[in-house]
Amino acid sequence: MKNYFVAKSRRLRSTPYTSRIENQGVTAYSVYNHMLLPAAFGSLEDSYHHLKKHVQVWDVAGERQVEISGKDSAKLVQLMTCRDLSKSKVGRCYYCPIIDDRAGLINDPVILKLREDRWWVSIADSDVILFAKGLAIGNSFDVKIFEPNVNILAVQGPKSFKLMEIIFGKKIVEMKFFGFDYFEFAGAKHLIARSGWSKQGGYEIYVENIESGLALYDKLFEVGKEFNVKPGCPNLIERIESALLSYGNDMDNNDNPLECGLDKYVNLDTEVNFLGKEKLKEVRNKGIARKLMGVIIESKEINVAKSINLTNDKNLKIGELRSGVYSPHFKKVIGIAMLDKPYYEISQTFKISINGDVFEGKVCDLPFI
Amino acid sequence: MKNYFVAKSRRLRSTPYTSRIENQGVTAYSVYNHMLLPAAFGSLEDSYHHLKKHVQVWDVAGERQVEISGKDSAKLVQLMTCRDLSKSKVGRCYYCPIIDDRAGLINDPVILKLREDRWWVSIADSDVILFAKGLAIGNSFDVKIFEPNVNILAVQGPKSFKLMEIIFGKKIVEMKFFGFDYFEFAGAKHLIARSGWSKQGGYEIYVENIESGLALYDKLFEVGKEFNVKPGCPNLIERIESALLSYGNDMDNNDNPLECGLDKYVNLDTEVNFLGKEKLKEVRNKGIARKLMGVIIESKEINVAKSINLTNDKNLKIGELRSGVYSPHFKKVIGIAMLDKPYYEISQTFKISINGDVFEGKVCDLPFI
Repeated sequence: MKNYFVAKSRRLRSTPYTSRIENQGVTAYSVYNHMLLPAAFGSLEDSYHHLKKHVQVWDVAGERQVEISGKDSAKLVQLMTCRDLSKSKVGRCYYCPIIDDRAGLINDPVILKLREDRWWVSIADSDVILFAKGLAIGNSFDVKIFEPNVNILAVQGPKSFKLMEIIFGKKIVEMKFFGFDYFEFAGAKHLIARSGWSKQGGYEIYVENIESGLALYDKLFEVGKEFNVKPGCPNLIERIESALLSYGNDMDNNDNPLECGLDKYVNLDTEVNFLGKEKLKEVRNKGIARKLMGVIIESKEINVAKSINLTNDKNLKIGELRSGVYSPHFKKVIGIAMLDKPYYEISQTFKISINGDVFEGKVCDLPFI
Repeated sequence: MKNYFVAKSRRLRSTPYTSRIENQGVTAYSVYNHMLLPAAFGSLEDSYHHLKKHVQVWDVAGERQVEISGKDSAKLVQLMTCRDLSKSKVGRCYYCPIIDDRAGLINDPVILKLREDRWWVSIADSDVILFAKGLAIGNSFDVKIFEPNVNILAVQGPKSFKLMEIIFGKKIVEMKFFGFDYFEFAGAKHLIARSGWSKQGGYEIYVENIESGLALYDKLFEVGKEFNVKPGCPNLIERIESALLSYGNDMDNNDNPLECGLDKYVNLDTEVNFLGKEKLKEVRNKGIARKLMGVIIESKEINVAKSINLTNDKNLKIGELRSGVYSPHFKKVIGIAMLDKPYYEISQTFKISINGDVFEGKVCDLPFI
């Protein structure tokens, strides 16, 4: 596959860390919430092995925050998500599908409850702020909505705990998964959550004070030497093996959360009021017509730049591959695909054409590992 | 400046023309509305000279449409823009700043009135569909809102008229600027507007039927040979010389339309109801605190990947450069900058640091040419 350059401009916003990661060897970018998101530091596979063994620091500033505060903030946040937040607690993170009135997915953020009347919606790649503003204006809600200048640094990998303990002390290791608290560094308080877009463990540092954040960035690499720290970024192999769904890749506004296997975060039998609730009840009653599944393909290579059709023996389309990558663990291509009913059964076989060659594949459960 | 690759994935959507432009030598992409937008076919300067003399075909599918139809569609469209659309006509295009309740710019689309109750909002780079949905849901408007699969081909340059006349006949040459009509090709009707993101003249073809659109793409290159047709894309040099503002680059949600010189499209003394109207009246009464202006810099080279400060003799910041490029016409760098009051006067001088060297610059009116 030929490579193409990214044309930089102010519209594809740089992050406070851009000059650092460029000095450290970033080779490719994606664009996420109108911001540069590092996508490779050389070999994807080397980075994958390193992430699973050591510790990496990621510039994920593209994971922007939508801050919603004020008297009606809890009402607005609940209106946007099908997850019941009525018992949510300050100091916790919540993975929340955001859907519209037709139950189509708009985003799948992690929502942080900062106070009873102040929330950060830590978004995937779509302008949730515009949806929130539209709803707030239309409903005359008493809220303030804006994008604070928060630039997340993720520290990921099994050695992230030791590294962070040296800098922030024992308290940070005792924090539970999806909890967050405030930690001081170089004269500033940073919100740090035990979270991140890998299953290798770690933290996300919600940097508000850029000067302190840059000092922290450098400190992580200085202290991290003994843990073989490297710059990194969300890794396509690791995230597919772990079935971390990617909004825009694996699912979009044409999909509902039940089709995407997000049933756990769809609380229909509750008193809370959210958009798309009736529509989702309909879907549940009728049953879903397709489902996001794992697939394993008998190939050593793939590049998924757009959906690729999956066909059955009769050459009929039975689904589409939306993400895929060669997995060194399985020694095959693995991927995430939307399969039509009744083909979303485990062990369903299919054919897929990659660069003109046809390969065999099989449907499986998520996650892979 | 070092170059970086773009990491392709389904989330950065390909267009129906992607495989064609990749065969034709596209070298760089931007990302626009979650879609690949070609940004270079080799030399920017060669492409600039060619665009001003001949004709180019552009894949601008990233210019997505938000279709708003139904009983309350006119009310919703008007609510979103500070331009008075009460006398708007079917078959016409309208450049319309979209603003929020604080008068911050959200987008600057061209709005096409397809029928009294059906509109296409042809958007710059932000998810206007989410704003429209939020407003419609919150206000309980009777509208249907979706993103139709329209993939625009632009035909731009002085020879575009002759080329399009051969394919579509005399009627297309008689169409007035910002008018649109329907033209048949290969079994499908295409909406074609006399418009485009250059000042060299031309058309935008709103392709809905992909098969016919691809045949048309090939036909344009076949017939275009005698006019020296080439593939192209919005050209940074040409668009800055012509002062075609770019949302996200030259202006964003922190700017209001009066600061951006869009006064012509701000109709405050009307009966129509739109968001931010009171806020804009306040701004008008108090006077703006800063203004978007042209700048000329005594340099031969620049790369604007983020805002660059402009300072005065006392080393105080007086504004920021948001877009800039070397202009072969002026033999200097030209750009678009936001200047603070009282420095937005023509002939105001400033200093700017580019890669460690300091250059002199001067404020000027827009457009340059």
